[in-house]
Amino acid sequence: MSESVKTDIDLNEYPHINRGLEGIVAFSSNKSSIDGQKGELIYSGYNIETLAENSSFEEVCFLLWNDRLPSQEELEEVTKKLQQHRSLPDPVKDYIRNTDKEGNPMTVLRSAVSMLEDYYEDQNGELLDNAIAIAAKMPTIVAAFDRARKDQEIIEPLTDHSMAHNFLYMLNGEHPGEQASKTMDLALILHAEHGMNASTFTCRTICSTESDMFSAVTGAIGALKGPLHGGANQEVMKMLLNFDEDPEHADPADFVKSKLERKEKVMGFGHRVYKVLDPRAVLLRQMAEDLSKETGHENLYEWSQTIVQTMHEEKDIDPNVDFYSATVYYSMGIPIDMFTCIFAMSRVAGWTGHYIEQAENNRLIRPRALYMGEKNKAWTSIEER
Amino acid sequence: MSESVKTDIDLNEYPHINRGLEGIVAFSSNKSSIDGQKGELIYSGYNIETLAENSSFEEVCFLLWNDRLPSQEELEEVTKKLQQHRSLPDPVKDYIRNTDKEGNPMTVLRSAVSMLEDYYEDQNGELLDNAIAIAAKMPTIVAAFDRARKDQEIIEPLTDHSMAHNFLYMLNGEHPGEQASKTMDLALILHAEHGMNASTFTCRTICSTESDMFSAVTGAIGALKGPLHGGANQEVMKMLLNFDEDPEHADPADFVKSKLERKEKVMGFGHRVYKVLDPRAVLLRQMAEDLSKETGHENLYEWSQTIVQTMHEEKDIDPNVDFYSATVYYSMGIPIDMFTCIFAMSRVAGWTGHYIEQAENNRLIRPRALYMGEKNKAWTSIEER
Repeated sequence: MSESVKTDIDLNEYPHINRGLEGIVAFSSNKSSIDGQKGELIYSGYNIETLAENSSFEEVCFLLWNDRLPSQEELEEVTKKLQQHRSLPDPVKDYIRNTDKEGNPMTVLRSAVSMLEDYYEDQNGELLDNAIAIAAKMPTIVAAFDRARKDQEIIEPLTDHSMAHNFLYMLNGEHPGEQASKTMDLALILHAEHGMNASTFTCRTICSTESDMFSAVTGAIGALKGPLHGGANQEVMKMLLNFDEDPEHADPADFVKSKLERKEKVMGFGHRVYKVLDPRAVLLRQMAEDLSKETGHENLYEWSQTIVQTMHEEKDIDPNVDFYSATVYYSMGIPIDMFTCIFAMSRVAGWTGHYIEQAENNRLIRPRALYMGEKNKAWTSIEER
Repeated sequence: MSESVKTDIDLNEYPHINRGLEGIVAFSSNKSSIDGQKGELIYSGYNIETLAENSSFEEVCFLLWNDRLPSQEELEEVTKKLQQHRSLPDPVKDYIRNTDKEGNPMTVLRSAVSMLEDYYEDQNGELLDNAIAIAAKMPTIVAAFDRARKDQEIIEPLTDHSMAHNFLYMLNGEHPGEQASKTMDLALILHAEHGMNASTFTCRTICSTESDMFSAVTGAIGALKGPLHGGANQEVMKMLLNFDEDPEHADPADFVKSKLERKEKVMGFGHRVYKVLDPRAVLLRQMAEDLSKETGHENLYEWSQTIVQTMHEEKDIDPNVDFYSATVYYSMGIPIDMFTCIFAMSRVAGWTGHYIEQAENNRLIRPRALYMGEKNKAWTSIEER
């Protein structure tokens, strides 16, 4: 029937196919440095611990967009712009109000960010203005959808206060306490940037076609949505809440051991990069401990520590950033299915920073695929198939 | 002020930074083979000329989803499903009606595809159903936006006829002639798949996080929107229409020569892969010649041929697929700013095929970036900056 020759190639014979692009250096970047051996994370010069102690999310945005800290005047200017750009165009609000209330919040965030492009005609102008607009509006989208799906009125953003404060205000309909704002701010700082992960890489690949920043961030949100990337902390939380709801799994140590016996993955452990404890996990562990006590969720933290200890004893694997961020977000009252949106609200600082960096020194990103199929097959009429 | 040491690395000293991932084989694939030396393009076994002569876009979709041609029964089934899934959920129609009429059609297409996810709850189920839904609805979105922005009524899709026929019907409000449907169908076949371009790579990268197909296609649309990828044929058309409108550029040969003298790019020429004439350009050239005569746009084709000849003489560069598709789409009455949407309506067959292939044998895609910035900088209080 066919005159072609099947090129029957066994994938294992082709070690030069690098399916994860692991170890391939595709960029030079000033955005972040990760030393997995030392447990070191640096954003544009500053260690994450330094930023967590001294900075704010607004300042970290400026840092990742400009590769340097702002002056007083510059910080005031970027903060003001981030405040002014918070509100959403009416058609975007209509969409958020009218879409399926059972829908995935990441789907809504992705669609709404995509829609925003039409309201920024100067998208090929000053990239920084686009970055500000996207970062400023993402918390508004997330909070608005959570209100809309609960049949609550959408709350207009404040034109003052920090992004962290304003987000909690829009989500809950009341001003948060100082401690809650501070915790939210810290959570945003910790996830703002992390090298060449799949969403940041998606962002730069889309940018590399000279497409606009809205396209690139929309694509990045889609990548972050995947369970292998941003979706992990939601799975951690479901695991932890299981101990509450299901007496069968009541003992976290037994749970972990039986998971390991069945060779199943325990969510929130291991990372391709970190060989020692992720420095963000160190900071988040402290936050999780403090917050869970404050909010009466001590059991969450206790279960967490039992799991960490068991994993350490059984497999010598440390928890990753997702493990403790789950408890932190949950204790702050964030709905579990919105955990990945919080991640996105933070990581947009890094995405947009990488977009600007890619646009400044661009090259179209296009690796190859090895064709394994047949060639030059003769046509067979449909009756003969 | 800072205790850190600047690692002042010159990019040129790092030849191992592969900024375009050129020559890196990231996948094995059964979707397409491109031989730039021979001018050969193959979709899952069959040369593009064979498919152009014998197949339909529906059949090519099946081929790219299954790596084989369908039986009569299978073709009828996939065709029927593609017909049944054409209509849009009301909130998506509302968005198309209410969004900015001056907006970029690719923005609308990207946002609407993103929104669709909420209406397919089984997105983690049968991937083929998602592929059918997305491919079936994209023409409806594109036609609906063109109608809406002209304040015309949105036309509901037919539940019979080919995708090509139905698209032209929804766009123009009347049934197309057989020749027009055939040409549209051929245009869809020719752009359906083309190896590891930036949009397909974006699609697979998003898939690699185990994110859903709607996320992946949304990201791919964003990548295709870039002028270095799918936007080129719009630029070709603007160039050609310039000769009509602007007497100063009236002579295409002079225009090309003065462009080359100024070392500017002539749109629609050159390709990273093809060293000889792109086989799609061969097929499209014939279509452009026939159509431009039929529709009274002979001058477009004549100008095109002068440009091709001049580029050949001056630079020995052949036209690429975008060069002739511009005239073909224009002659078919497609608005210039929708050319890239037509490309997307076609390429979605390849994108979804690649998604299915990636999902079947997945690995998270994550290359590295070389950090060039400073490290461990001491904090400076804002007053001292």
